[in-house]
This record gives sequence, structure tokens and C-alpha cells, in this order.
Amino acid sequence: KDKGRLLICCPDQPGIVGAVSNFLFQNGANIMESSQYTTDAYEGTFFLRIEFDCPGLQGKEEEMKSKFRAVAENFNMKWDIKFVYELRRTAIFVSKQLHCLRELLWEWHSGELVTDIALVVSNHEDARELVESFGIPFHHIPANKDIRKEAEAKQLELLEEYNVDQIVLARYMQILTPDFVAAYPSRIINIHHSFLPAFVGANPYGRAYERGVKLIGATSHYVTNDLDEGPIIEQDIMRVDHRDHAEDMKKIGRKVERSVLARGVKWDLEDRILVHKNKTIVFN
Amino acid sequence: KDKGRLLICCPDQPGIVGAVSNFLFQNGANIMESSQYTTDAYEGTFFLRIEFDCPGLQGKEEEMKSKFRAVAENFNMKWDIKFVYELRRTAIFVSKQLHCLRELLWEWHSGELVTDIALVVSNHEDARELVESFGIPFHHIPANKDIRKEAEAKQLELLEEYNVDQIVLARYMQILTPDFVAAYPSRIINIHHSFLPAFVGANPYGRAYERGVKLIGATSHYVTNDLDEGPIIEQDIMRVDHRDHAEDMKKIGRKVERSVLARGVKWDLEDRILVHKNKTIVFN
Amino acid sequence: KDKGRLLICCPDQPGIVGAVSNFLFQNGANIMESSQYTTDAYEGTFFLRIEFDCPGLQGKEEEMKSKFRAVAENFNMKWDIKFVYELRRTAIFVSKQLHCLRELLWEWHSGELVTDIALVVSNHEDARELVESFGIPFHHIPANKDIRKEAEAKQLELLEEYNVDQIVLARYMQILTPDFVAAYPSRIINIHHSFLPAFVGANPYGRAYERGVKLIGATSHYVTNDLDEGPIIEQDIMRVDHRDHAEDMKKIGRKVERSVLARGVKWDLEDRILVHKNKTIVFN
Amino acid sequence: KDKGRLLICCPDQPGIVGAVSNFLFQNGANIMESSQYTTDAYEGTFFLRIEFDCPGLQGKEEEMKSKFRAVAENFNMKWDIKFVYELRRTAIFVSKQLHCLRELLWEWHSGELVTDIALVVSNHEDARELVESFGIPFHHIPANKDIRKEAEAKQLELLEEYNVDQIVLARYMQILTPDFVAAYPSRIINIHHSFLPAFVGANPYGRAYERGVKLIGATSHYVTNDLDEGPIIEQDIMRVDHRDHAEDMKKIGRKVERSVLARGVKWDLEDRILVHKNKTIVFN
Repeated sequence: KDKGRLLICCPDQPGIVGAVSNFLFQNGANIMESSQYTTDAYEGTFFLRIEFDCPGLQGKEEEMKSKFRAVAENFNMKWDIKFVYELRRTAIFVSKQLHCLRELLWEWHSGELVTDIALVVSNHEDARELVESFGIPFHHIPANKDIRKEAEAKQLELLEEYNVDQIVLARYMQILTPDFVAAYPSRIINIHHSFLPAFVGANPYGRAYERGVKLIGATSHYVTNDLDEGPIIEQDIMRVDHRDHAEDMKKIGRKVERSVLARGVKWDLEDRILVHKNKTIVFN
Repeated sequence: KDKGRLLICCPDQPGIVGAVSNFLFQNGANIMESSQYTTDAYEGTFFLRIEFDCPGLQGKEEEMKSKFRAVAENFNMKWDIKFVYELRRTAIFVSKQLHCLRELLWEWHSGELVTDIALVVSNHEDARELVESFGIPFHHIPANKDIRKEAEAKQLELLEEYNVDQIVLARYMQILTPDFVAAYPSRIINIHHSFLPAFVGANPYGRAYERGVKLIGATSHYVTNDLDEGPIIEQDIMRVDHRDHAEDMKKIGRKVERSVLARGVKWDLEDRILVHKNKTIVFN
Repeated sequence: KDKGRLLICCPDQPGIVGAVSNFLFQNGANIMESSQYTTDAYEGTFFLRIEFDCPGLQGKEEEMKSKFRAVAENFNMKWDIKFVYELRRTAIFVSKQLHCLRELLWEWHSGELVTDIALVVSNHEDARELVESFGIPFHHIPANKDIRKEAEAKQLELLEEYNVDQIVLARYMQILTPDFVAAYPSRIINIHHSFLPAFVGANPYGRAYERGVKLIGATSHYVTNDLDEGPIIEQDIMRVDHRDHAEDMKKIGRKVERSVLARGVKWDLEDRILVHKNKTIVFN
Repeated sequence: KDKGRLLICCPDQPGIVGAVSNFLFQNGANIMESSQYTTDAYEGTFFLRIEFDCPGLQGKEEEMKSKFRAVAENFNMKWDIKFVYELRRTAIFVSKQLHCLRELLWEWHSGELVTDIALVVSNHEDARELVESFGIPFHHIPANKDIRKEAEAKQLELLEEYNVDQIVLARYMQILTPDFVAAYPSRIINIHHSFLPAFVGANPYGRAYERGVKLIGATSHYVTNDLDEGPIIEQDIMRVDHRDHAEDMKKIGRKVERSVLARGVKWDLEDRILVHKNKTIVFN
């Protein structure tokens, strides 16, 4: 299809929407969906996402971008144009718990997640059968604190080789080094099994049980070098009660982890998420 | 403040957003919030809501409208410009149950509902004390099936006298005649105490209990001449279980009735709701 | 394990809980969980579910039951004792949409649904690969309005052969005849893709879209001979808005269908559901 | 009415339910509702709440209690019998924000909260009019860090004088001293305007905004000497997005604060909450 998405971030000032709309109109593009947000009236940062349909778009991607450059310079924009028919390439990292991976594979299989799942990487063998049953390459790379550097070197090589755009940590239980994170800024999505900022770090269900909370949650977020402190994409919760031990919470939590991660990945693939400072603007 | 809202509905075609944006830019208006929707790409109906800030807007309302007329004609628009500082005037109708009325009065009192509550009309005296404690005129107009015509005549006279724009039926237990409804098209908001289209008509909680549902709901909608069939604005639900009798459901339901009605009224006052055929487009 | 469940329904009167507790105590059973409900104080029907642990229970099932008979007669009880270690046998019926089937298989695979999935029956071939990948027998029995009788004859034969206790219709798009339903009273669980009693019958998402609802839902219920009128087990909803067409609602609805069905099946397997008239008492 | 509630906590062992049921049966009490919970099978602590109806209960409260003492000693129980017709006496503490106070007053006025609201105490005058309009005594006691001791002395005197059983902090913005808390153990309910343990302490909405969360919450809990660390009674959340500034979150949060507090107070009044270590068992 001839669909594109224009993403813009710039200092707010009058006239931006008019200039962008005229550009699209003059280049034969029809606006299908448009969302905008300004952090503060008059002095804020302006964000715009436009989904457009432009007959004959394929083949003139560079022309489109080069024409837009002039508009962008006028307004001092950071911007990008994404072409929907150019499929993103996704790598999924997983450890032993497979519920998030399964959800992603199913949502992808049923057409909900529009991407190429290029490969799945794991520090265990548990996911191999499931992954290969979908015809997706599976790579087992042992990883732990002591061999982090070597493991990441292999992973980065694979990501390069498979030409990956987006990395999803689907309950991957290893911490990534700053070098790894720096290689994929705002491109690594993690699922944390708590309602952040509650229970940052290890064993959130155990600590939730100890504290006696009545709701448990999950948070999908972009990975930065501060553990569990990256920009939050989506959160949701499930109700628990005094009868639920930590083990029960883990089971209940799986349902919310998988849906919160799948929503985050979907919005990212649809270019609905703009990162600003340590927060996300989600146009959904 | 110098805030306005531009509301547009027209056949979709390329160039609309550009033309509107340019108009606003040339007239010194800065877009604060913009939402759009097309029913179908290429052949659909296009809806647009823009909230703008325009220094010096007060005093040149007619000028603004008259200038926009030219743009509107080009695109065959149905349109309106609302000036936020011109407060709407609201009438609330109520019977004996006061929870929805109370919620509206509180939300209004705390600045959440920006309107003049011009008067409260009731077929009973129960609400008088509460209403008058807020300094709002209260009018008791007896009403029932047999005196509907006379009652409505008096009500319409009052609405005229108080120059009312918006009517909220906050658990008003009388059916309105087509003449009454025709006098305020898409301006009468009702709360129905079920999850429509389940349990249209009388005694929804009793019937919900009989059916053994596990969730009960409430629906705010614009009133048309088909009972409980008008365009739905908002719905929400609460969980019930086998222990809840019809009386319990009534109590539980109050909480969701009041919030669903208050949200509907708020969005209407903020011009966030566009009615199309028998549905609403809600830009929130 | 030595776990059992005692299920009781009888006219309410003082002394029931005492008599039952003493029986369990005298037979060496420790109460792990106990839930009770009376429809109306003094004149109502009393329901009790007790989960107990009884060392050495295996082997003396008949003795336990025969001893309890005396207690039961005193209070005119309908009752049953279930032995948790005697796994139920489940048949799943499915057509072309596999999301509910997949959810059930995964929940079963991860230990959440404690049962033997004896077989999967379908009027299409779509599910075969998935089902057989779990090592579960798959039977393709063509079915439609014109060959209903023959199809059901084959199905009933299979259910007999596989000794099935519980039948789950996981988006099985055929109507069952009264004869079939009568063979498995309160043992057939269906998922209906609407918030019942809204949108009984075919194409609920299409009709939800037409009506312009703001929430869609799903309902799991026992099958009776009145289409979509059987006792409701569980319901839940998802939010939609004006941008969601019927196709979008179908996709959104899948998530709630699968969780609502899985919860219903789980509670049934754990003997948490008692059917009374056309309603359920769910002890969860 | 002749309703009572029996509350029990003891080491788990077989025979407890039987003994208690027999006691009630022999004393002419019919069990209306019964809930139980054991922390761990075989070695755990057992909790029981029974709501019973006992014709002629009034007048023989002491007799009932004294008879039960024998049963209680056998099982080493901590226990209490509450007589529903003996209304609890509640004090509400509030500062300048009135939404939680209003909710409590309305729920009480409409019969949802069954208690005597003995008085309202505030360190400001804002609530006076509202409180006195319900005919409830209002006491203004200035309070701040520097005069905490004196303020609390006056408050404790009033609580004594009004014979108060339950204290509700309905957005009372002062910290209580250990002496005050010790005088009403597990009897002071606070609403914290965050989803604990996230955002313990001051300004939770401001910090929630800074962190970029997608959900905000509220928590009702018993007050202990660790700030915001007492046993959690109830929690709930509302969705927010990137458009919501801290001020918007405050407004949105009010709705969830008031319902979470009202539910907590109601359950406490109905003796549905048992405190165990730093957690609650809520039988609802």
C-alpha cells in the first residue's frame, strides 16, 4: 500500500500544521489520521504524527524526504517519514518464561503485529521448539553476569547480521550493558513485572506479596541505562487479594505482562510513540 | 481567555486541514489541540475539532465567523465556532434519586464542569434543599403520564426564559414527547442505568438481577424519540456477583451512573462530541 | 494429593454448617477453603463448597460418600464429593477462529487448567496442526444446518468413547440440538462474543458497531436450549471508540473472549460454580 | 435487628469451624454469611468472620460472649463479637480538600456507611459549612509541625469526649505522632493519593507526572508509625496520558481517592477487615 507516516518534533510556533498540511496536499498525500501535542502553550515542544495515503508513494521515498527538508528547516524540526510497506525487523530476547514470547508470536501470526520477526535470542533452550515451529531462527547464546561482554558481543553481531530495528525483551532476565543500550536508543522495549515505579528491580511479585498490595501490575518501557527507569509506554493492573501468595501473583501477573508488552510493541511498530526527555507521548 | 473551538463536518477530500490551518494562522490563532476523524478513507465524512488561542478574540467573534464562511463554502462544511468564555447555560432535570444531581453540582462547584447551571427542574420536591444550597433556582413542576403536555409546556417556557443551551436528565423518570425533544436536538443528555442496548426501558437492575449478569453498567446518551436508542456518549460498568440482589445492584450502579453522566456532560460542554447519524464521535 | 471438594445445595436451616464440619472433622478432613451462600435468609436455598484435605483419601472415596449420605438425608441435600486427583476429561469444540482454543491449550499446558484435554472436535481443518502439536487427538467432523443430526451423532459417539465430562465451545459456530444439550446438562460451556443480554445471536460485533457502543464484551455461560440464554458464568469488557469498525471490534474482542472463557473453564474445573435456576453461584 | 458478627483469629487446626458452628446453632443463631482464610495449610493462622442472625440477641450480649469464652479457650482464639445494632462512632479528619469528606458524608447520608459520624475535625475552616449542613459537630483545631503536640492533645480529648471508635483521615495533611497512633491501633484509616508503595510521602501526583506513569492510583490503609507503610485495605487506579499535567492528575485522582477511601471505611464498619502482621484480610 502507499501509506506513510510523518513524525515531527519541534519548538511550537503558529503555522506548523498549515505548512505540513500544505506540503502533503501539494504532494498528493491524503491525511488519514493526525495527532498532535504541545508540552506547553506558546513555549512548548510540538509533536505531530500524521498517517497519510499517497498514491504512487513507492519509488519516490527519497524525493518525498528531500522535498520535506525545506519545510523542516523553516521550523527547526526533528522529523522522519516512515513507509508502512517497509517492514520493520524485530528481535525478541527471552529467557525461561515463555508467556510474553507466545503472546507476541500469536499476535504477529494473526496479523496484529506488522513486522518481520527476524530472530529470537535466548540464554536458554526452552523457547526453541515454539520459535522454530513458526519458522523463525532461534539462537541460543548463554548469558550471565560473568560472561556478559562476550554474550553481548555475539548478540550485537547477530542483530547486525539480521539487520534488526526493534528489540523486545520478553522476560529476558539479564541486564544489558550501557554499550548495548547505546547501540539501540529508544529501540529496546522491556516488560517489567510491576507497576513502576513500585518494585523496581528483582522479584517484584515477592515484594508485592510482602507489602500486601491489592493490585499487581506490569509496565512496558524503553530501556535506558537506569534499571527500570526508562520512558514508560504502557501500564496495566490486575486485582489480587489476601489469598494470593507470591506464586499466585506470578500466574495472575502473566496475563497483564503479556498484554501490556504486546500493546507497547504494537504502538512502537505503528510509530505511535514519541520519546521526549524521559517520557513517552503515545498517539493511540 | 481568548480561547475558541472550531468544529467541522464535511465530505472528506484532500486539502481541508491545510486550508483550515492557514485560516487560523492568518487570523493570529494558535492551535492548542486538534482532533480529526474520517468515517472512510476517500469517500467518508470528515470531522475536525480544533481548540485555538487567539489574542484579542473577544469582540471579533462575528468577524472571525464571517471570514471563515468562505473557507467553509469551498469544502461544503457544516461548522461552528464556539467561544470558550461564553458560558453555556445548563438545566438539570431530576426526580427523586439525587446521586447524579449531586455529582454534577459538585463537579460544577469544583470547576470541573464549566457552565452556568441556570436552573434545576423536578417533578418532586426532594432536590430543593440541595439545589438551593448552591444558590441555584429550583422549579417544581409536577409531571406524569396524564399531564405530560401541560408539564412540558411549563418546562419549555422555563427553558426559554432561562435561555438554556444544554439539558441534562439526571435520573429524571419521565419520558419526553417528540415535541420537547425536537426543541433541543442533540442537546438533551440522559443517563440510562444499564449497559445499552441491554435492558432498554424500565427497571434495568431488576432485569439484570433476573438474568444473572456479572457486570452492570450505565450509559449516557443524547435523547431522541426512540427510547434509549439515541447516540451513545459514554458507558462504563461495575462488577456484581450472585450475592447482589436488585437492591444491591441499584446501590452499586449509582457510582457508575454518576461518573458516566458527569463525563458525558463534561465532554459536551467542551464541544468534544460530534453526532453523526446515530453515533457520536468523541474527541477526548 | 488427598484433596476433595464437597458441594451442597439444600433448603436453608440452622445447623447445616455445624453438621458438615463435624462430619469432616470426624473423618480426618481439614477444611482448606469454605464458601457459602443463601438466596434468602430463613426461606432460601443454601449452597456450600468446601475444599478439604484428608490424608489417605485415595482408596476410601466410596466410604466417604456413603458415610456422608446420612448427613445429607437429614438436611435434604443435593450434594457431590469430587476428588481433585481424579482428573476431569475435557473436549474442546472449535471452528475456524483459534484464539480461544489457543488460550485454553496454553493455560492447560502451563498448569492453570487442571484437566485431561481428551480431544478437540472441529467442523474445519484449521485447528489440526495446533492441536496435534500438543499431542491431543483432533477430529474433523463436518457440520452445518443440513447435516446437524449426523454430525451430532458422530460427536456424541466420540464424547462417549473418550469418556468426556466437560465440553467447551471455543468459538464453535454451530448451534447444538436439544438432544445434544440434554446429554450434557450444565457441562457445556460456551463463549458468546458480546456482553449478554446485549446482542444475543449472530454477528454481535457488527451490531455493536451499528449501535455505536463504547464498550464491547464477552460472556461465558452454560449452554441450554435457549440460544445465549443459559446461566452466565463470567463477563468482561474492553473499551472501543468511534474509530473502531466492526473488524477492529472483532480483533479487540478476541482478547476478552479468550480470558472470559478461560476463567469460566477454570472455575468449572475447580468446582467453583453451582447452577441454580438460570443463574450461577461462583465461589471464587 | 438481631444481627451479630463473630470474628476469630487462631492457630489453624481441625475442628474449629465445627465447634463454632455448633456454638451458634445451640445458641439459636443462624449463619447468614461466613468467610474464612488460612495463611498456610496445617501450620497457618486461621481467620473466620461469621455474620449471624439471632432472634432476641439484644439484651444477652454479655451472656453470648461469656458462653463463647469456653470455645475460644479450647482453640486459643483472639476473638470478638460485634452487635450490628450498636452503631460505631466515627470521627473524620480533613484539611482543605473536601472531596473525600463529601463522599463519606453522602454515602453515610444515603445509608451506605452505617455509623454515627460523631464529629469532623479540621486544621482549617473550609469544611465547616458542609459539615454543619448535615447537623454534624465541626471542630477547628489549628495544626502544623510546630504545634503538633498541643493540637493532638486537643484532638484526643475530643475523641474521648465523643467516644469515637473509628478515625478516618479524609485527606488530612498532617502527620500523626506515635502517641496518637498508639491510642487507636488499627482504627485510623488514611487515604494516600498514590498506588502504594509507589510515591510514598509528599506530592505523589507531582512525582507521578515527573516519572511519566500511565496510571495513577489511590490507597486506603490503616495508619501505623511508618509513614504510608501501614496495612493496605484497598487500592484502585485511573488511566492518564501524556496530556495530563500534575494538576490534571490531581483532578482525575480525586475520583479514585474518594471511592477507595469510602470502600475501605465501609468494609471496616462491616467488620470485614482483619489485620495480620502488616497486611489485611478483607472478607468482601
